[in-house]
Amino acid sequence: MQKKETIIIGAGLVGSLLSIYLSKRGYKVNVYERRGDMRKEDMVAGRSINLALSDRGIKALEEVGLMEEIRKICIPMHGRFLHHADGTTAFQPYGKEGQFINSVSRGELNCKLMDLAEKHRVEISFNQKCESINWQKNEVIFENTLNHELQTTNFKLCFGSDGAYSAARLTHHLQHDRFQYQQYYIDFGYKELNIPAGENGGFLMEKNALHIWPRGNYMLIALPNTDGSFTCTLFFPFEGEPSFAGLDTKEKVRSFFKKTFTDAEQLMPTLEEDFFRNPTSSLVTVKCFPWIREDKFALIGDAAHAIVPFFGQGMNCGFEDCSVLNSLIDKHNENWSAILQEYQSLRKPDGDAIADLALNNFVEMRDKVADPKFLLQKKIEAAFSKKYPDKWIPAYAQVTFSPQIRYSSALVNGRKQEAIMQEVMSLPDIENKWQQEEVEKIILEKLKG
Amino acid sequence: MQKKETIIIGAGLVGSLLSIYLSKRGYKVNVYERRGDMRKEDMVAGRSINLALSDRGIKALEEVGLMEEIRKICIPMHGRFLHHADGTTAFQPYGKEGQFINSVSRGELNCKLMDLAEKHRVEISFNQKCESINWQKNEVIFENTLNHELQTTNFKLCFGSDGAYSAARLTHHLQHDRFQYQQYYIDFGYKELNIPAGENGGFLMEKNALHIWPRGNYMLIALPNTDGSFTCTLFFPFEGEPSFAGLDTKEKVRSFFKKTFTDAEQLMPTLEEDFFRNPTSSLVTVKCFPWIREDKFALIGDAAHAIVPFFGQGMNCGFEDCSVLNSLIDKHNENWSAILQEYQSLRKPDGDAIADLALNNFVEMRDKVADPKFLLQKKIEAAFSKKYPDKWIPAYAQVTFSPQIRYSSALVNGRKQEAIMQEVMSLPDIENKWQQEEVEKIILEKLKG
Repeated sequence: MQKKETIIIGAGLVGSLLSIYLSKRGYKVNVYERRGDMRKEDMVAGRSINLALSDRGIKALEEVGLMEEIRKICIPMHGRFLHHADGTTAFQPYGKEGQFINSVSRGELNCKLMDLAEKHRVEISFNQKCESINWQKNEVIFENTLNHELQTTNFKLCFGSDGAYSAARLTHHLQHDRFQYQQYYIDFGYKELNIPAGENGGFLMEKNALHIWPRGNYMLIALPNTDGSFTCTLFFPFEGEPSFAGLDTKEKVRSFFKKTFTDAEQLMPTLEEDFFRNPTSSLVTVKCFPWIREDKFALIGDAAHAIVPFFGQGMNCGFEDCSVLNSLIDKHNENWSAILQEYQSLRKPDGDAIADLALNNFVEMRDKVADPKFLLQKKIEAAFSKKYPDKWIPAYAQVTFSPQIRYSSALVNGRKQEAIMQEVMSLPDIENKWQQEEVEKIILEKLKG
Repeated sequence: MQKKETIIIGAGLVGSLLSIYLSKRGYKVNVYERRGDMRKEDMVAGRSINLALSDRGIKALEEVGLMEEIRKICIPMHGRFLHHADGTTAFQPYGKEGQFINSVSRGELNCKLMDLAEKHRVEISFNQKCESINWQKNEVIFENTLNHELQTTNFKLCFGSDGAYSAARLTHHLQHDRFQYQQYYIDFGYKELNIPAGENGGFLMEKNALHIWPRGNYMLIALPNTDGSFTCTLFFPFEGEPSFAGLDTKEKVRSFFKKTFTDAEQLMPTLEEDFFRNPTSSLVTVKCFPWIREDKFALIGDAAHAIVPFFGQGMNCGFEDCSVLNSLIDKHNENWSAILQEYQSLRKPDGDAIADLALNNFVEMRDKVADPKFLLQKKIEAAFSKKYPDKWIPAYAQVTFSPQIRYSSALVNGRKQEAIMQEVMSLPDIENKWQQEEVEKIILEKLKG
């Protein structure tokens, strides 16, 4: 098969990485991005949660030889650093010794990927807004957002990697009979805040951890940046008590933080300014089907499966999409009809699964991590897993550190494990006898069933 | 409060009925309909399942004094008339003696409602397509579909009653932050077919029944028309074996019907023509939120909650929307902010419930009604219900004959009953001992729990 002329709509993380994959295979790739070139402009701050790059994303970056370059801007986080309401703190490792996730700035990573894409002869056009796609003529109409001129571009192969509010998806959707579509917003929004670096660029809290202030119905988190600062994100109800709607003056914000996130508040000199300057963003889950058209179009990344950020898998899942697609190009020898068909049938259930896992994890992060019973459960699982690593990989580790396990399998396995652990946790006096052989036997028995 | 100037988008069944409700209260009502006036044009046949008007719809029509007029075009259907694959037939009553649903032609009913609306001083404008709504200025822009001229219309109060593919909903959706939206298509389509009247307008099958040919994965149904004919609808997979995709020649259609719907096929002289002239239509469920804006806009009927037709409740639910809204106008004394808020909070859970009930009922109609075990279960329920009418109303009767029970309650009650009946049906030798006191005692016991 010939190497098709390819266009990619969206130069975000997934679009940029995909362009490198395809360009390395000899495809002529043009990327069209609605925004301006973020490398030349002031970064639009305040809307991006810092990202947690983990094994699925790393695997994809390694496949195209980019990880060495990206690792330079990563900060390893070995676990959750909890800041409880009573002022105590605790550390919960994410996995086994040596397992960690990586804090990385979305903007910095995106700039780096665009640089690398251009190095690989990818052409990126900025300020190009996808207006519509003509599926008969295989043309995309872009509007130049600066001078409002329209431009028609032909393609043989087209990818929509333009994010949760994808314009490519919308034109695909509106011209598709029986398109399955769901957008679901949670009642919580998020706002980016900041803890600056200390003197000489030192970190004012533990550097190699993801900090969480779990408060039941809501939470604050903080991820380290290479300059010694932390990017904080408040996940908070839109309405009710407390809520974004309620915190409507600088005084209320400062006093709420002082009372609720006491140790963090002391490190946030620009809290009020940040709070009222940065937008309150919403959190959407999008599921849709089909993702593809014949041999010529596919949605990828958030455009295909927008998820909430609570499992730290949005980018990792999108990068894994690229990796899976790449392996299918080999398998089907550039037969794009077969490639896209299998891409969809493999990735749709995985996209659905990580969407559900991410929604569930919000409750875990904001509430359960502060519950002694939950912590005991994790301890029992970790001990069992250490003794029987081939029989039990904790659900978090399956998703985060086990790219060989599909998201859809991790969801099923996790549910089975949870059912077993519910029974274990209901044993009388489990707090004292969890290290006894009896408990281990019960788990082994139930795993057989 | 003043009587607001009101516009209704869509002159279908629900829009027409709503216009009568409001006009009778003294509101000045203008209705805008995308299509031409169906009373002056050839009826667009082939896309409307005959409708089953039941108690919720009747209650709403009675409230505005229309039922006497509508009853003239109704044919009572007292139960399901089953045509089994082996050639045998059976009759299953829908409820108690004297309970029935009514077959009525969508077109005829709609024409009659438009006539009655105009009698009540409602103005209906045809060929007016809703292009967009400006929520700041309270203006709707309509395009005249004949000359493509745009017209801007002001409103104080606006209803979107323009069906499953509502344009009003789309403009509401696209301009609404965090709009919850889901469209779900089943893998089945439907096609309208016909059994003509016999000599002298006689009915060629039992007149007062809804005929079903249940065939496991699919089914044919037929509803009587006043002219002696039956409108048939084939609910059938789009793809697979058998499917619409597979029946691609006149010969295949005739031979499939001869084999599968033997007694019906003999009554269908124009089967092949009907099959290839009439469209294959899809079946969508739409759930969304919010339905309203402040004191000035609400979605109603299918525009708010499109459902599949298998419970015969689409129109009945839309008519009940009107009835509930009307009672709230009284309750809140024309305070439209309070009226719309309570309309939404009452009807959203009911719309969700009937959507789920309707999806479930497809399996019952196409498959379970032919299962002896299911029939025994229904028999046990009916006997128990007859003896203890205050303790047990069968789920079908709650939805169809009990407008005092909300759909959302019917869903919950029905699930509870189903759980009880599952236990009853698993009793050893239930086939022979179902009339014994023991069974009755078990049900009574479980109802307490």
